[in-house]
Order: sequence, then C-alpha cells, then structure tokens
Amino acid sequence: MGVAVVRYALPDTPTRWGIVRDQTVHTLNLEGDDHRELMRCYFESRETFEAAIGGSVGTLSEVTLSAPLRRDIQLLCQGLNYADHRLEGGLDKGDENDENLLFFKAASSICGPNDAIVRPPGCELLDYEIELGLVLKNTINRPVTITEDRLQEWVGGLVIANDVSARDFMFGAPAMQWFRGKSQRTFCPLGPVLYLMDSEDFQQLYNLKLTLNLNDELRQEATTDQLIHKPAKTLTELSSFVDLRTGDCLLTGTPGGVQVGVNTRSAIAILLNMRNDKKRREKFVSAQLARAPFLQPGDRLHSTIQSLDGSIQLGEQYNIVCDI
Amino acid sequence: MGVAVVRYALPDTPTRWGIVRDQTVHTLNLEGDDHRELMRCYFESRETFEAAIGGSVGTLSEVTLSAPLRRDIQLLCQGLNYADHRLEGGLDKGDENDENLLFFKAASSICGPNDAIVRPPGCELLDYEIELGLVLKNTINRPVTITEDRLQEWVGGLVIANDVSARDFMFGAPAMQWFRGKSQRTFCPLGPVLYLMDSEDFQQLYNLKLTLNLNDELRQEATTDQLIHKPAKTLTELSSFVDLRTGDCLLTGTPGGVQVGVNTRSAIAILLNMRNDKKRREKFVSAQLARAPFLQPGDRLHSTIQSLDGSIQLGEQYNIVCDI
Repeated sequence: MGVAVVRYALPDTPTRWGIVRDQTVHTLNLEGDDHRELMRCYFESRETFEAAIGGSVGTLSEVTLSAPLRRDIQLLCQGLNYADHRLEGGLDKGDENDENLLFFKAASSICGPNDAIVRPPGCELLDYEIELGLVLKNTINRPVTITEDRLQEWVGGLVIANDVSARDFMFGAPAMQWFRGKSQRTFCPLGPVLYLMDSEDFQQLYNLKLTLNLNDELRQEATTDQLIHKPAKTLTELSSFVDLRTGDCLLTGTPGGVQVGVNTRSAIAILLNMRNDKKRREKFVSAQLARAPFLQPGDRLHSTIQSLDGSIQLGEQYNIVCDI
Repeated sequence: MGVAVVRYALPDTPTRWGIVRDQTVHTLNLEGDDHRELMRCYFESRETFEAAIGGSVGTLSEVTLSAPLRRDIQLLCQGLNYADHRLEGGLDKGDENDENLLFFKAASSICGPNDAIVRPPGCELLDYEIELGLVLKNTINRPVTITEDRLQEWVGGLVIANDVSARDFMFGAPAMQWFRGKSQRTFCPLGPVLYLMDSEDFQQLYNLKLTLNLNDELRQEATTDQLIHKPAKTLTELSSFVDLRTGDCLLTGTPGGVQVGVNTRSAIAILLNMRNDKKRREKFVSAQLARAPFLQPGDRLHSTIQSLDGSIQLGEQYNIVCDI
C-alpha cells in the first residue's frame, strides 16, 4: 500500500507536507516544497520517510490544501484517449492503432485542488476535463521500451487533474491554439493527494474510477480500463522523441461528458472560415453555445478519483468558476 | 555594445564559456553551464564579467561549439509571424490584428549549432525554419504591459534557432500534433552565439537579417522588420496567461521559403480525411512530396543572423541531416 501525500496549511502557518490516513491529515516532518525530493525520500529512504510521519492535525476539510506538485515541471497531456470523448469530438471510437495525440500544457496553469478557476477575459467556451495524472519516478532521456509489468520503474505517483480548456481559444488560430486554450493560469487544478505507489498498487491502475460533477449533476464518469493508449505504451512513445524528468506529470486524457462537441454547424463554421480568424471564432462560438452553456462564473465543479476497491483515494477537488 | 557568448570545447578539454571578438574565441573564466547565471553576472556584476575575460584560444571554426542555452528552459514559439510564410501556408498575408499563434516546443529538442539533425524513423516531410530567438532577462509571473521602448527590461539575449519540423507528424492526428512534429530531439539547433544585449543594441532589433541555405542554395531570407507580431506585444500577450522565467527562449517565427506549402491537393487530403489518420497522412504526404523533396540524409543547412550594420553577429549554424 502506498501513501497519500498532501500540501496543507493551518490558519496562520506556512504550507507544509502531510499524509492522509482515514480522512485525517498527519504532519510529515520533511523540509522543502519540492515533490521530487519527497518522492526520492519515499522511494529511496523509506525509513526516513516513515520516521517523519507525525501526529494528526485535522480532517482534510479542516486544512487549506495546495497543489502537491511544483510548477517547474513539464506537464504532458494525451488527447482523445477515451472512446466516448472521441465520439463527442466527431471521430470514431478509435483504438490503439490510431494516433496517440500528445501535447504540452504550461505548468504555470497548476493551481490548488480547491482554488477558483478563473475564466480569462474574452473566453466564452470554458470547459472542464477530469483526468488521471501520472507522476514520473525517474528521468527518461533516451528511447526506452516500457512494459506494463515494469511500469513501476517509471511511474511513482497518481494525482487528480482537471485539464481546463478554453475551446474558443483552441480554435482561435488557423492551425489550432492548444497552448493558449489549455495553458492559462488556474487551468490545471491538481490534487489534493499525490498518491505515492507501491508495487501492489499497480494492480489497481486500470480500476480507477473518475467522476466529475457540475453543479451537483454527474457529467463525467469512467474507469481507467477504458484508456485507449495505455501508460506503458504512451511513455515508450514519448521516450522515443522527448526527455522527461523525475516529477513531470502525464495527464492521460479525459472521458466523455465535456461540453464541447463537434456538430455539423461547428464543423462547417471551422471549415468554411479557415482563413478568417474572427469569423471562424464567431461562427464556432455561436454553434457551440447553441449546444451547451459552457462554464459560467459561480458554477461549481466536484471531481474525484478512487480505485473501485477503495484502496487508492486521490481525494476530491472543489472548484468554483469566477471572472477576473 | 553587447557581448557574443559561446559554449566551446577544445580537443580533450571540457566545454566552457567563451566570448567572441573579431571571429576569435576568448576564454571566459566563469564556472557552471547555466546561461541564467551567466546572464545574471553580465547584467548585475559587469565588473566581474569583464574581469573574467581571458586570452584567445582560436577562431570559431577551430573549436567545438555547443548550444549556449540549457535544456531545462521553456521554449515558446510563434507561428505564422511573417507575411510570406502565411501566404505559403494558404492564408492571407495577415497583420497584427490576426491571432498571434503561440505554441510550446520541448526544450530537449535543443542541440548544438553544428550538430546533426536526426530525421526520426517514419518521418517523410522533414523541414527547416530559421528563427530569431529572444532570451528572457527576467521572470514574468503576472500580466505586464511591455512596450517597445522598455523591452530591454525583459529581453536580455539573442540567438539563432532552427525550428525543425516534421510536417507529416504535425498533421498526423485529428487535431494537429504540433508537439510531436516540433519537439523531437535535435529539432532545435541553437547558437553558436548567445548575444547579450546592451541598451543601444535594441535599435538593431528590427534590422536583423536572417538567411538559410539548403545545399548552398538560398531558401530563406528576411529582416526582422517584417515580424507581424512584435516582441513587446507578444510578451505582453504571453504574460497575460502564462509564467515565463529568466533564461526562457521565445522563437519569433520563420519567414517564407520552407518546403511545406498548402496547395489544393493537400487541403483536400486533410479535409476529406479528417477522421482517418492513416489515409489523411498518406494523401497529405503524397501531395507534399509532389511539391518538394523535403530534407534527406546528407542535406546541408547553413543559417545566419546578423544586423544590417554588422554590429550584431549571431554566428553561423552548419547542420547535416542524417537518419538514426
């Protein structure tokens, strides 16, 4: 069994490391704020880690929680990695022979698990995407073949992530603006828990259940056995062309149930106005708003990930949408 | 007048800092390999920097040159930022009212100015893109308004970059794969010179001439007065949504003359096969190969950037294309 780590603060005290047992936060007497140091301690000096665990300070809801990962990492993402999300994107359900869509999200988008999500000025199509985040245990700077049964050599932690997306910004340039649409500050609530995995936890990797509620209504629900491109294959693929570092995070894609959807009007709006930024955006936004209201100030999101057997609990995110 | 810094090695000696004067490399007795430390020294302790300059060790062609920037930075890029490149991309010539297309390139793509560019397995449409890189002098972690006359508070250095691109990988997924197409290892030759700018150098910022030759034939030639979205505006825009750190690099886009080009066959190949990855790629590749041969093993690239008055010299890149 692994351990659920959090970054927490009590009133008038600085943020520090803690661990969660039975919904209760205990102090963890390790200095610094770098999750890479913490992971190194956990995986290489287990005795030091265990000795650092102290007394209870309160329940999860009694402390202020911060993101458990620092913002100087690389945040890599998979797109279109669940069949139902592919279908709502106007594609077929796909399989692992389809392209594994990979992109970067700026790590300065990381915010705390209960922080407000700020809708940027001019954004009309703000959307959510719950995702399982995998935190890397080791640096990869050359092509390696990673197999499912040796995944634990490379993956050390799990975390809830919300890959918040401004759909109008994504389609705002002739050749897509994934960076601008995905990387805005507060567009990646992370945590509360960084779950550090022991060997036996890998048996639960495809038994994790994700849920996202919008204003108390269930919008996204899936289990990780539905992932099209699995982590071992995806990390093998990434290693073939890019360097990854200890502590970097891979977001594994979102299931169906987001607000954006490709319908005929939207597709025509994009295709017929490929050369006119303003007109394309206007037509696309109006076609999308006819489908869904998208996120508005005051909207409440609630996201969870846990294993079906309850042994792995990544906690809960509560986020309210606001304007600047 | 600023100073031209390089990372160089002589046979059997480790790589270290040097400066270039009259095509001659002089030692620079500063420890470490981090360009951020070097920039801090130059901009904050000029006397220490000057005192570290030592004797001549040879000409630029007599030393082995490495990239002057480390690979743990953020590499941000502008797309479609010259009129003639927009036109060859099937768009109108554009102006600053059009979207400023921004994207991330993995910094592990950085390689030395004379290193081989490796064509990845399966890549058929390998292309070049000479670009001026701006190196940031200060961290930006909130929205700031940067004006052209105060640009020197934020920009500290200039560098030649080649934003090497696998066009078939970029169009390889339903919603574009900029990350995979741009981020492969060796896809960003940088240097040789990191030019640290003094106040008066900013007068030359829009008088810089870029050239790229393929096998001794001039393919790209432009001056920076043609940049559509200027650095001050672009950094202001970036600051509004993403954090930038000292030493990060902004590639300002490539002029016309690359090999990819949108013609009717390519556009039809993409549009009619939006849902079929394999077929779309096959049709797109065959349409593009009918236009240009793209880069092949053995092809030689030669890139230069210098100011029209000759006061700023960023050196020359020589790269040979090879297969793994």
